[in-house]
Amino acid sequence: MENVDVVIRGGVVLPMKGRGAIDDGLVAIKKDVIVYVGKASKSPRFIAEKVIEGKGKAILPGLVNCHTHVSMTLFRGLAEDQPLLRWLRETIWPLEAKLKPEDIYVGALLGCLEMLKTGTTCFADMYFREDMVAKAVQELGLRATLAPGIIESQNAAQTEKMLEESIIAAKKLHATAQGRIRFQLGPHAVYSCSPELLKRIHKAALRLRVGLHIHLAESEDLARQVKEKYGVTEIPLLKKIGFLGPSVLAAHCIHVSKQEIKTLAKHQVKVAYNPVANMKLAQGMPSIVDLLEAGVSVGIGTDGPASNNSLDMFQTVKTASLLQKIRYRDSTVLPAHQALEMATRDGAKVLGIENIVGTLELGKKADLIIIDLKKPHLLPVHDIYANLVYSATGSDVDTVMVNGKILMENRQVTVTDEEKILEKAQKTAQNLLVH
Amino acid sequence: MENVDVVIRGGVVLPMKGRGAIDDGLVAIKKDVIVYVGKASKSPRFIAEKVIEGKGKAILPGLVNCHTHVSMTLFRGLAEDQPLLRWLRETIWPLEAKLKPEDIYVGALLGCLEMLKTGTTCFADMYFREDMVAKAVQELGLRATLAPGIIESQNAAQTEKMLEESIIAAKKLHATAQGRIRFQLGPHAVYSCSPELLKRIHKAALRLRVGLHIHLAESEDLARQVKEKYGVTEIPLLKKIGFLGPSVLAAHCIHVSKQEIKTLAKHQVKVAYNPVANMKLAQGMPSIVDLLEAGVSVGIGTDGPASNNSLDMFQTVKTASLLQKIRYRDSTVLPAHQALEMATRDGAKVLGIENIVGTLELGKKADLIIIDLKKPHLLPVHDIYANLVYSATGSDVDTVMVNGKILMENRQVTVTDEEKILEKAQKTAQNLLVH
Repeated sequence: MENVDVVIRGGVVLPMKGRGAIDDGLVAIKKDVIVYVGKASKSPRFIAEKVIEGKGKAILPGLVNCHTHVSMTLFRGLAEDQPLLRWLRETIWPLEAKLKPEDIYVGALLGCLEMLKTGTTCFADMYFREDMVAKAVQELGLRATLAPGIIESQNAAQTEKMLEESIIAAKKLHATAQGRIRFQLGPHAVYSCSPELLKRIHKAALRLRVGLHIHLAESEDLARQVKEKYGVTEIPLLKKIGFLGPSVLAAHCIHVSKQEIKTLAKHQVKVAYNPVANMKLAQGMPSIVDLLEAGVSVGIGTDGPASNNSLDMFQTVKTASLLQKIRYRDSTVLPAHQALEMATRDGAKVLGIENIVGTLELGKKADLIIIDLKKPHLLPVHDIYANLVYSATGSDVDTVMVNGKILMENRQVTVTDEEKILEKAQKTAQNLLVH
Repeated sequence: MENVDVVIRGGVVLPMKGRGAIDDGLVAIKKDVIVYVGKASKSPRFIAEKVIEGKGKAILPGLVNCHTHVSMTLFRGLAEDQPLLRWLRETIWPLEAKLKPEDIYVGALLGCLEMLKTGTTCFADMYFREDMVAKAVQELGLRATLAPGIIESQNAAQTEKMLEESIIAAKKLHATAQGRIRFQLGPHAVYSCSPELLKRIHKAALRLRVGLHIHLAESEDLARQVKEKYGVTEIPLLKKIGFLGPSVLAAHCIHVSKQEIKTLAKHQVKVAYNPVANMKLAQGMPSIVDLLEAGVSVGIGTDGPASNNSLDMFQTVKTASLLQKIRYRDSTVLPAHQALEMATRDGAKVLGIENIVGTLELGKKADLIIIDLKKPHLLPVHDIYANLVYSATGSDVDTVMVNGKILMENRQVTVTDEEKILEKAQKTAQNLLVH
């Protein structure tokens, strides 16, 4: 007999290490840690503070969203269906210039609420004032890796300030909130930061022992500008200045040559694949199958809610598989199980926290979600992985736990007043347009 | 003062004729017909049997799913991520050979329930024993255009029987269930029916005054076989035998030349675009923008639930837009409003019932859905069309009405026992695999 805090029993448990599924499974959680995963019939006897009935449900690791700009929820639906650069220059950048820290906080609250309600337990964010995003993460109980975005300004003092503030935020907030919040530095992209600045940020990250999060090879046009300016494309340039390494998270990597894929693999760069945003902004179809074959770790991201326009990882994981099938004209690539692995285990690896979360295993932190399978679109259950990837959406998520704490149960968010966040976000978004 | 049956008041009404949205709108329904659509403040005074509060909600026409095989819900998740022909030959066709009429009915019940719960009010189906699908449609209250599928058998008597049974079903069931059920004839494809058979089916359809539903230019491999056998590709062949015309619904049309697009336009052939299935089966990216520019009417379909694996039109409409953007490498094509128009007004046109449904207009049948907008992923509302297409899913549908009858209210299905259907479907699907 062992005292634990929570027992979830009777459901199909998908630990996401290998293809296995445990029918009539049991997961036991003590404080923030998983202390049992296996058959209910073979489990020791637990005395639990709380028992969750899992029958007719699937229990799996929470999804990991490897690239987003969560506060951009405020811009969702603004200037839709436009070319990337026009959208940025005419709508997004002018609005971002007006954003107050409080706005970033409110946008992050809304985005975190959406992620929580759709089964994402951990996300990687890049944006201004990540301290405000951290505040929202702290409040809602999610796990996050936050990268204050750094863009080189024509005003050198402004650039210095951005870098300095990023370093201060990382120093102050990395590994806080019971370890739920981690920081990276976020040089925006090769086309928006000079090699000198990139080198300085890289050094600062080494000193702080934090990772790096950068946009890479997303836009063909911008990559061409880089080539014209520096004589080489983005990846060789980063290689040359010593930027590449295992703690670099590179978002997109759409336009990469075979040689560049080898470079990414050799330096163990991690990639965030953002299928919906790549399609919506018409940037191209990344060669994820080639990246995986070369041994690159790839996670999945929604990208910002203004270029998706959803933070629902379930839908994004489906599109992740579909886009590779059509890219390679081969219906067998990126099958359901692998796609779900990319959204859980591999996502954690991409963020460098695979020893903490990403699978349901003894000793890992209890970040998990419970899906209600008793829905017309989730029956019959011939293949649980196919049903979760191709048929489920985030709204099928019933219960969410992060670090052993229940954040949502039976779709009721337990950690915040949902209505208040919705009202505040609506007001903040309206004000941005008026003033 | 006018007596009506239902008034929906206070929401944002999207009639889907033009880009307009009516804030604080009102829709009044008398029997099965819309008798008012407009501003609540300008409406006559209605005395209604039932008043639905629409505040914070969007009211729009029910979605029209232009191509599916609804009973294939039973096969959802079977033999996933396989090449098309292997999937058909090794899994689907052997199982279909074992299907009993009762199985087709149960599969259709499950599929209709899923569509109802995700806001589809009308669908076009092609399958065996459409009389059993009709039974499910009749029970659940949806609207449907059903095409008994005809495949040429090596056994001529078998082919005759199939054709005859199709004609009998169409005669008996076309324009039944208060006009909700319509029939077409469904020659499966050019590669699976000889020109002689196609001609006979075409003649029979003319005689019965029903339309035709056919798979067209889906698979490059199969199209090549047609070309080898007959010396021309599918579309010129159909043209030659006089098959093409305004009541032909052609599903897919992926591999079409410029000349063939002209032919489709000239003969006013209607096209069903199935973006998710096209990606999942890796068949190709249809040139929908070119088809539209040529003046072809295009609706959107989910395709069968075993090749999607969802009947949620909201997700399919999003993918419809995304796939065109990446196909043309242009983020401005198939914008949200147009995609939603394709899923409502144009869908009705493709099924030849645009005078009955597809928009919210005076005198049209009351087929409508109500979406709850008070959700984290649907805020803020900068652009209601973008939110519905890029952010909403079928589970945001609150209330569904077909022919003036409420089929679901606040997500409670009012016309059937949902639990029973789920149980029956699960059992039927399991039995198929065992015996």
